[in-house]
Amino acid sequence: MITIDATHDPALKSWVPGADGHPDFPIQNLPYGIFSLGADGEKRPAVAIGDKLLDLSAISGLLPVELRGPTLNALLALPAERRLALRRKLSELLSNENHRPALEPHLHDRSAVTMHLPAAIGDYTDFYVGIHHANNIGRQFRPDNPLLPNYKYVPIGYHGRASSIRPSGVPLVRPKGQRKPPEADAPVVGPSARLDYELELGVWIGRGNDLGEPIPIAEAADHIAGFCLLNDWSARDFQAWEYQPLGPFLAKNFQSTISPWVVTAEALAPFRIAQPARPEGDPKPLPYLWDEDDQAAGALGVELEVQLLTAKMREQGLPPHRLSKGPASNMYWTVAQIVAHHASNGCNLQPGDLLGTGTISAPTDDGFGSLMEISRGGTRPVTLPTGEERSFLQDGDEILLSATARAEGYVPIGFGECRAVVLPAR
Amino acid sequence: MITIDATHDPALKSWVPGADGHPDFPIQNLPYGIFSLGADGEKRPAVAIGDKLLDLSAISGLLPVELRGPTLNALLALPAERRLALRRKLSELLSNENHRPALEPHLHDRSAVTMHLPAAIGDYTDFYVGIHHANNIGRQFRPDNPLLPNYKYVPIGYHGRASSIRPSGVPLVRPKGQRKPPEADAPVVGPSARLDYELELGVWIGRGNDLGEPIPIAEAADHIAGFCLLNDWSARDFQAWEYQPLGPFLAKNFQSTISPWVVTAEALAPFRIAQPARPEGDPKPLPYLWDEDDQAAGALGVELEVQLLTAKMREQGLPPHRLSKGPASNMYWTVAQIVAHHASNGCNLQPGDLLGTGTISAPTDDGFGSLMEISRGGTRPVTLPTGEERSFLQDGDEILLSATARAEGYVPIGFGECRAVVLPAR
Repeated sequence: MITIDATHDPALKSWVPGADGHPDFPIQNLPYGIFSLGADGEKRPAVAIGDKLLDLSAISGLLPVELRGPTLNALLALPAERRLALRRKLSELLSNENHRPALEPHLHDRSAVTMHLPAAIGDYTDFYVGIHHANNIGRQFRPDNPLLPNYKYVPIGYHGRASSIRPSGVPLVRPKGQRKPPEADAPVVGPSARLDYELELGVWIGRGNDLGEPIPIAEAADHIAGFCLLNDWSARDFQAWEYQPLGPFLAKNFQSTISPWVVTAEALAPFRIAQPARPEGDPKPLPYLWDEDDQAAGALGVELEVQLLTAKMREQGLPPHRLSKGPASNMYWTVAQIVAHHASNGCNLQPGDLLGTGTISAPTDDGFGSLMEISRGGTRPVTLPTGEERSFLQDGDEILLSATARAEGYVPIGFGECRAVVLPAR
Repeated sequence: MITIDATHDPALKSWVPGADGHPDFPIQNLPYGIFSLGADGEKRPAVAIGDKLLDLSAISGLLPVELRGPTLNALLALPAERRLALRRKLSELLSNENHRPALEPHLHDRSAVTMHLPAAIGDYTDFYVGIHHANNIGRQFRPDNPLLPNYKYVPIGYHGRASSIRPSGVPLVRPKGQRKPPEADAPVVGPSARLDYELELGVWIGRGNDLGEPIPIAEAADHIAGFCLLNDWSARDFQAWEYQPLGPFLAKNFQSTISPWVVTAEALAPFRIAQPARPEGDPKPLPYLWDEDDQAAGALGVELEVQLLTAKMREQGLPPHRLSKGPASNMYWTVAQIVAHHASNGCNLQPGDLLGTGTISAPTDDGFGSLMEISRGGTRPVTLPTGEERSFLQDGDEILLSATARAEGYVPIGFGECRAVVLPAR
């Protein structure tokens, strides 16, 4: 089990200037990432602290785990107790002033480095556990019956594209593709006219399982190394035309954006909360998806937010405009349940695999996780402070996702940046 | 363009005993693979010739391309002209008796080695281009309207699971999962009762494209390095319950089996045939999917076959029983079209990615590519020579896929073995 220890102590301070009180990366967080000095520099592992990062490859001798190379896959694959030992050591190194002379030369300003994907992602799977999202989208297609009969039994998921996942900051080129206007006899090809974002959490798989060997729900937490933010960009017009009968394909595989820091399961220990009770009358999960401990502490006390910055807002020096805000606990299934389900048929998960939760929407407008929901399928545009309207994204729009974990008596920790700007189609 | 040259000369002979007249691997084929001596031995690249293979890492000095390491990804990524130079050199080495003393020590019996996956598969995508299969399956769900409106415009595809792809010979453990019996109120969990195979061709991607940069249809062939056989094992009961609205997931990701040899696009040059004409009244492909040269020579003159060997047949010493046989040209879209479509929104393909065609069925019973079709959804079981009946696969059943390319005036070449036996659920 993941435990709360001295590394979470709210009284703990860091000698790194600006780390204490940092909204994302105080010493209680200690997320891992891969950086380089310059876009083409050598890729190296790091831990974020305040507005700095510490180059872990340079202080290898001080750590209980050797960290080198261009990905974190080996770190993610470590047994939980070794990851915990690493966290405790880093907590000590960054809090005890005695280590400052040895470590300070290996601190870099985060604003001055290039961040990369934290892992080589073998497979990427996206789920659909945001029940309010599923209801909102389902209602647009089937007003009387938004949720399909399997939804409350099966953690619905599908395989996504690993190669096109990019870290925060890499611009998105508006995709071209087929769409069929309702009034037309045949589809047309062109830039997506209904480009959307989707607010999701990403789950980094740690230890894998062998092919043919399911992961019992009670062990699922041991396979979860950490979390990130995930923007599952979606071309709604392509999706509507292509998705029957095999699901989304070109509507979603042109790019997905993630925050580059792995916020560890260890760091999130104080922020675990009970899974929200299922509504009266909903079926109890099948035995392979049911675990009392997971129900008691399998959800995350994390607040999610989406902001939009248009080109005009940038010109006028305006701050980003909040599109939605809501808790991550609006998930019908826990992350342990999606991991156990994924492996229940023997499918092998591997260290560095990424799972998306699916869009997490709150029940009300101010917490909807996509423009498709906010604008009611494009029929009710949002008005921005500039007077601009948005049903879907325009070229030059930038989407910023953020997340903060909060719990009474603990220092809040954040997930860092997950942003990307939309460039015109080529 | 892929050209026919002296390496395809039907008069060309090899000094390797048994290579001439070999049904799969005469000197005109020269497919690449990864082998080891013993299951845990070092993985090395090889070329197959008759019942032997030649260890390419051992003769590196003789080749125009350095080949080492546990995967063929670097070889697949080579520009077509460098792959062609390698093929020509190997053809000369294995035909000219002068090279025999130098090479013979590096030949191994294929029956004595372990074959591995030929490449590290970054992403695996499965298509649905077998129009008779789409009709057959569609008819079981929608008798009056088997093909959905998008089928003749969109090469339908979806992302599959890369981690669970295994080479020929690795047994398949029957998966467990949720299924909902029609008469039941709720799903039950247990071993799949409707386990099926699917006969497909696999397409190995060679050179990749950058994210955001589509592959024009006229250049698609340059990105296709070779082909294999692919058995897309499917749990039909899981599939029926889970697949709405996001497509197949646990019904298909528990294992896929491929033949371990990459039959190159170069080797298949003489076997290219015209894409079958679309039925009268079908729409012309959209411009990004239309290329005259591809229509003229974008299909493959390959015959596909499926055989079944049950435990009882094995006990009685009976040979495998043929379930179906038919031409690979029963594809509504060419492989160039599926590559161009996949990248049309900017999705980046990478060397070693694998595309499946989807099940290739002929129009008649004797060419159906799955038991779901042959048994009409389980209502018309097949009777085997032992008197056994099969609607779906039983434990102990082995499925064997094979393929042979044939063309008037050329030596036929085959794809090698793609087989796996079904083990009981754990």
